[in-house]
Amino acid sequence: MDSVLASIESGQQAALDGLFDFLRIPSVSADSAFKDDMQRCAQFVRDAMQSAGLTPEIISTDGHPIVYGERMQDPSLPTILVYGHYDVQPPDPLDLWTTPPFEPTVRDGKIFARGATDDKGQLYTHIKAIEAWVQETGSLPVNVKVLIEGEEEVGSDNLDRFLEANKERLKADVAVISDTSQYGDGIPAITYGLRGIVAAELRLTGPSRDLHSGVFGGSIANPANAIAKLCGLLVGDDGRIQIPGFYDGVEELSDKEKAEFAGLPFSENDFLQEVGAGAVFGEAGYSTLERRWSRPTCDINGIVSGYTGEGPKTIVPSTAMAKITCRLVPSQNPDVILDALESFLKQHCPPGLQFEFERYHGCEAFAFDPNSPWITAASEAVAAAFGQPPVFIREGGSIPVVSSFQQILGIDTLLLGWGRNTDNLHSPDEHFHVDDFMNGVRASVHLWQKLSEVSVDR
Amino acid sequence: MDSVLASIESGQQAALDGLFDFLRIPSVSADSAFKDDMQRCAQFVRDAMQSAGLTPEIISTDGHPIVYGERMQDPSLPTILVYGHYDVQPPDPLDLWTTPPFEPTVRDGKIFARGATDDKGQLYTHIKAIEAWVQETGSLPVNVKVLIEGEEEVGSDNLDRFLEANKERLKADVAVISDTSQYGDGIPAITYGLRGIVAAELRLTGPSRDLHSGVFGGSIANPANAIAKLCGLLVGDDGRIQIPGFYDGVEELSDKEKAEFAGLPFSENDFLQEVGAGAVFGEAGYSTLERRWSRPTCDINGIVSGYTGEGPKTIVPSTAMAKITCRLVPSQNPDVILDALESFLKQHCPPGLQFEFERYHGCEAFAFDPNSPWITAASEAVAAAFGQPPVFIREGGSIPVVSSFQQILGIDTLLLGWGRNTDNLHSPDEHFHVDDFMNGVRASVHLWQKLSEVSVDR
Repeated sequence: MDSVLASIESGQQAALDGLFDFLRIPSVSADSAFKDDMQRCAQFVRDAMQSAGLTPEIISTDGHPIVYGERMQDPSLPTILVYGHYDVQPPDPLDLWTTPPFEPTVRDGKIFARGATDDKGQLYTHIKAIEAWVQETGSLPVNVKVLIEGEEEVGSDNLDRFLEANKERLKADVAVISDTSQYGDGIPAITYGLRGIVAAELRLTGPSRDLHSGVFGGSIANPANAIAKLCGLLVGDDGRIQIPGFYDGVEELSDKEKAEFAGLPFSENDFLQEVGAGAVFGEAGYSTLERRWSRPTCDINGIVSGYTGEGPKTIVPSTAMAKITCRLVPSQNPDVILDALESFLKQHCPPGLQFEFERYHGCEAFAFDPNSPWITAASEAVAAAFGQPPVFIREGGSIPVVSSFQQILGIDTLLLGWGRNTDNLHSPDEHFHVDDFMNGVRASVHLWQKLSEVSVDR
Repeated sequence: MDSVLASIESGQQAALDGLFDFLRIPSVSADSAFKDDMQRCAQFVRDAMQSAGLTPEIISTDGHPIVYGERMQDPSLPTILVYGHYDVQPPDPLDLWTTPPFEPTVRDGKIFARGATDDKGQLYTHIKAIEAWVQETGSLPVNVKVLIEGEEEVGSDNLDRFLEANKERLKADVAVISDTSQYGDGIPAITYGLRGIVAAELRLTGPSRDLHSGVFGGSIANPANAIAKLCGLLVGDDGRIQIPGFYDGVEELSDKEKAEFAGLPFSENDFLQEVGAGAVFGEAGYSTLERRWSRPTCDINGIVSGYTGEGPKTIVPSTAMAKITCRLVPSQNPDVILDALESFLKQHCPPGLQFEFERYHGCEAFAFDPNSPWITAASEAVAAAFGQPPVFIREGGSIPVVSSFQQILGIDTLLLGWGRNTDNLHSPDEHFHVDDFMNGVRASVHLWQKLSEVSVDR
């Protein structure tokens, strides 16, 4: 492995040149004006995989193509599914960029370009590491299957269908994704848990038109009062969600996890500064990080009824609507939660109102056992490259592809983020530290070795 | 009085001709295109008052003019302040009118025109009755002060200032307004109570921007959840308002009033049909009419926060706003109620949110003692004209001028409505039954006689 690592050092400029070529392609999936560039970018990824010793192909979808390539070294070795996405967010507003978004530029040790960290720069580390292994040793310590899609920034509409149709082909022991971040500057992290989500819309209809609140007020249920009441009952004064059965089976964090979270550098003042809120508020008995990463929520994302313009208007509104999402933690089933939410709301709905409850797509939470040998192996690889062991964190959000891998392919995902939260993801002046890029490549070199040592049942 | 009444019968066509001239003037106060017509209409009213034996003048305001005239017969007689408004609602949508809004036409015994019932037709009954008295007897049994404004349909912005500036000039024992309706077809009514109102806007601000509900959900107060909670707490499951002190001093209806309400023709099915609601809902222990007329309310008139478009959006909104009105009943003080509302909301507001509470203009409830000799006198006048005694009702809405007369001039108002709820007020094909118009004139003739018999302290 030493010669592989040595080739990374000597090949740094070539790797950066390759990355810059990748970043120059404006692969904006949301805008059909860039359709040809998306094709060109898929070809770039295919060529890069080819150079890395994989057998790639471009697979058409109803949207932008998927690039898939594999290198099956030996069926007895662990098989790793690597995922990334070559599409990027739209670069607007352009005038806030210091240098143009598709002309990658290095300043202060950072590569500035749209997609630098999300996700071209991060996914490219794995391709370069595989290439180094193959070119230096003619082999890889593991089997790899590399799946790079072009629709992550627009909802991955065609990914699940591809996974469903290629279950056997994509069979693997574990997945690796580098599309998250380090915990803080110089604090590499492995994200071993994500919250799931369910989403729904509640609609109440009362009178057939807005009524005069003087003539009719007090004699029929007011949909605005009612929706406020229903939504207001969801979370108690202690921050606990009041839906019966909501917490059934929800596991507490282990003492080790609590200690790990508590040991992370975290300033509540800095946090409040960042979000601009006056105080923290959440479920009693939990820290802010615990609340964000490991406890379920019930948030009203939007609510509207009646007159919302200037000044007063004396009506009893005809209709009311609220959008509700619950973030889920492991062991909470999305359908069960939606059932419980719907019946809780229905049960408290005043008489005379028409009650409608529309369900949107949801996904389960994800948690990788932090004591798993995969995590240990990945941790050692990260430590070897970044010079210090990663912290083990969770994220409060959901990453749908992780949920898809879990549900469709039956595998867990190692979330190994080389970037930083401060890299301006989705914003002007997106960037990726050159050091983070190179450490990512090194970590990936170590990763294939470390993962090869995990014993798998065949 | 017989000769006065006889002159009404013989003068019917002349009265209708006069009314038609009045109705032909498009006195739309909301639209500046009709400014000259407003002037012309004020002149019409002045001339009509002049013919009726009053000493009228047109008084400029910052908006449309007020026409005021009086006939002080004898200082020892009761003095009656008659109020009406010569401005009308805009006639749109024009294509829904069977005949043009400013070309009065009689069909099926009804006068069709904008303003026919609201309020030109109704106010004109009093002018014609005064005229008949003066022309037949050379005198009036009471002193009258007639105040006709031109801004009722646009909020009466200049009326209160006029009242404040002319308290002595407008001094009277009681006011008379015909700008309400009979209870039902052929059931004349005296409206002896109106609810008051207070209005406020609640604004909550949380994070400085909409936050990702996955990354941040559960760790800070969500303004949408919070506003739902605060608004949802206002009314209990039993329809009772939960603000401490809200019902302090609120008087129950007398048994006589309850019996009167219960004796009115009222079909709950027809009511639900009319409003299009599935069931009645309100304060436990009260009938629908009692709830609408004599019990206070707390209605959310509008609420908005976060994302309200199509599909889900996973945010914790930054801000939330709700508009709240309370309908008040006698003995509830608007300021006290707003104080109680504000502190109730503030007390339940989760930590970390900025709380803003904006108060709008409000007014007290109004209730004329149904046993007052003024009511008895008016009742006898109505009975004599309409052939049956009026029912005694209240209205759930507020009529600001009644509140102004009470607060600025210190007098109660007799609300004597000659029109019907089905007269298409504010809608196309507004109309006024010829019979109702003529009964209104007759009732007014009786009214001056009956009111003259009420003994007043000087």
